[in-house]
Amino acid sequence: MVHLNLDKYKNLRREIDESWINIHPIQRGGILPPESKETLLSFGDGYSTCDFCIEGRIDLVRTPPVLDFAMDLAKFLNMDEVRFTPGARGAKQAIFRSIAKPGDTIILDSLAHYTSYIAAEVNDLKIVEVPHSGYPEFRINVEDYAAKIDEVKRQTGALPAAILLTHVDYRYGNLSDAARLGKIAKDYGVPYILNAAYTAGLMPIDGKKLGVDFLICSGHKSMAASGPIGVLATTYEFAGKVFRTSAIKGPWSGRAFLKKDVFLFGCPPVYGAPIATLMSSFPYVYERVKRWDEEVNKARWFVKELERIRDFHQLGQRPRQHTLITFETPSFHKISKKHPRKGFFLYEELKRRKIAGIHPGMTRLIKLNIYGLTKEQIQKVIDAFHEIARTYEIEVE
Amino acid sequence: MVHLNLDKYKNLRREIDESWINIHPIQRGGILPPESKETLLSFGDGYSTCDFCIEGRIDLVRTPPVLDFAMDLAKFLNMDEVRFTPGARGAKQAIFRSIAKPGDTIILDSLAHYTSYIAAEVNDLKIVEVPHSGYPEFRINVEDYAAKIDEVKRQTGALPAAILLTHVDYRYGNLSDAARLGKIAKDYGVPYILNAAYTAGLMPIDGKKLGVDFLICSGHKSMAASGPIGVLATTYEFAGKVFRTSAIKGPWSGRAFLKKDVFLFGCPPVYGAPIATLMSSFPYVYERVKRWDEEVNKARWFVKELERIRDFHQLGQRPRQHTLITFETPSFHKISKKHPRKGFFLYEELKRRKIAGIHPGMTRLIKLNIYGLTKEQIQKVIDAFHEIARTYEIEVE
Repeated sequence: MVHLNLDKYKNLRREIDESWINIHPIQRGGILPPESKETLLSFGDGYSTCDFCIEGRIDLVRTPPVLDFAMDLAKFLNMDEVRFTPGARGAKQAIFRSIAKPGDTIILDSLAHYTSYIAAEVNDLKIVEVPHSGYPEFRINVEDYAAKIDEVKRQTGALPAAILLTHVDYRYGNLSDAARLGKIAKDYGVPYILNAAYTAGLMPIDGKKLGVDFLICSGHKSMAASGPIGVLATTYEFAGKVFRTSAIKGPWSGRAFLKKDVFLFGCPPVYGAPIATLMSSFPYVYERVKRWDEEVNKARWFVKELERIRDFHQLGQRPRQHTLITFETPSFHKISKKHPRKGFFLYEELKRRKIAGIHPGMTRLIKLNIYGLTKEQIQKVIDAFHEIARTYEIEVE
Repeated sequence: MVHLNLDKYKNLRREIDESWINIHPIQRGGILPPESKETLLSFGDGYSTCDFCIEGRIDLVRTPPVLDFAMDLAKFLNMDEVRFTPGARGAKQAIFRSIAKPGDTIILDSLAHYTSYIAAEVNDLKIVEVPHSGYPEFRINVEDYAAKIDEVKRQTGALPAAILLTHVDYRYGNLSDAARLGKIAKDYGVPYILNAAYTAGLMPIDGKKLGVDFLICSGHKSMAASGPIGVLATTYEFAGKVFRTSAIKGPWSGRAFLKKDVFLFGCPPVYGAPIATLMSSFPYVYERVKRWDEEVNKARWFVKELERIRDFHQLGQRPRQHTLITFETPSFHKISKKHPRKGFFLYEELKRRKIAGIHPGMTRLIKLNIYGLTKEQIQKVIDAFHEIARTYEIEVE
């Protein structure tokens, strides 16, 4: 056997612990509440949720109560059926695989997460993008989907296989009008996929009211789960298609796997810590979505405070509808050009103050998320930015 | 919002803790060593390994040292390149998707894990099974692959897209001759996939010596990782195909994702606890595979002791080459027919002795795994079975 020095893998610890303020744009909604850390440890072994598996599928396990949870989660989202997936990305691939065939077209918004594009690519689908409004708001006007559906129909002779909307996008944190698009989708009779990775678990989501056929959620992004784990929720109409069970049969052995979900790996790889922590965090998530308005208010206050720094401009929708926020910061970018640490100066100034999550080296645009931070913590972040600005002689109004 | 009673999800704990002896057939190789429990907690939040992600793909992250780890793991397995996947099942789907097209045929052993069949089904592939020898040994004779390859060629005019062998199967724990099949695959020029979910991480595996093109491993099954996480290892020859990066482009936006692996969800959903614990357990796994012979010896001793019970017969290869063991137990099955608790009597008798992992209700066949148990623990399991036998007046020799 080859000799390897493995010391670097011993005592592996994350550099950022709880004494830090973490404003990483993709992390705020996935932080485990204290009670889920106990659950994480208890269910730490990979197959820990499979001790009493009778049916051979994680969503049917009764101890721990995954079967009940799947039903409660469907009610919470106001959808008919849910399954768990290896991340929201896994849900997208399963949906496209089950309702489209190679060469079909899907329409998505031009702010969609890259995994929506990859899901199309892996399924050999054509894509049509709905434009955004460009600088500075980058809005998606969902009315534009109608023209795109007409265009696809004209060019291909058929309706698109599906339309996908990113409820809140990861670049500007813009909230798009999912309910309005639900009406358009219904008018055209086109399956409607809503990627709610940044909303479900943070704000109340009512799938039926939004008129969606498929609702995709992310446990580790917005449901305080360890993960990676996604949620694929759908209606009775589509459940049979996307949750189609296996029909393959061993030609010699006669073996068959009638309970296994074909498009979800048979039993999706979410057993163990991902599903256990998604469950244990659910009571906490159920309560926190009721306080979404407070989060939005904190976000607006934060924007106001940061825009007191010269040449700090919030991009995306105004006023803020979400806690994920992007600023363009030409004043800081100018500093980086002269600073011996170049673009890393900001990252390092924040690090010194135990604030983590700004992309190292980035100063032209700053993306961050303040979801779930206390007012005191947000004040510390504001103070840090103001201090850094003043250190480099940038005016703070 | 709908009102839900969520008390059952609070303080979620696994029923089986460390005071139990767990002989669950799929769990023994995935139990975290103590040092990885600390890592699990530290990296508990879903995107915890993404704090310093620059390249946008988990296998390229340098802090924690995933990039180094991917290279060390490739050396450990003696393969050229590795990627991480949502379970071994994810690796199978990615391989089939990248090297076969709908309608192609793959050959697999008739003891293959169901996810190998599902991977074929989701990719619209035809399957041909290599028979096993039937009762009582259920051996796969890898020489039979040659005849099946000829048969496929005769019937379809082309070689099969791939052949897949399950290194150790999950039903009888039989170890098949992977190296011999490597030679056959080479002779025919057919891509060769080895599913080493029950071997890599338990016993030393040398992919080059076995002549495999694709080596599939399971972190939560055999590499002491929390997971779910799989490993897809391949050669330079196939890396470009199975690890093909994205080529899709937003037709309006021009967006592209050139670093993302198309068949692995862009960045595979293994970030956070799965990859962190796979890494932190690696030094432990690296050492333990050197002691595989001791494990096999313990398994043989265990079989000898259990076969002292009247009508206990070990199924599968003799002598044992693996710690996953199936017994047929007609004497216990007879008890279940008269027992007020029916087939559950055995499960409950074991539970009373804090031994977990036997499928509840099953008495005709008993499947278990003693990997990594101490001799004292194994003795306790033996004593428990002997005691239960005597309780129901079944002779123990």
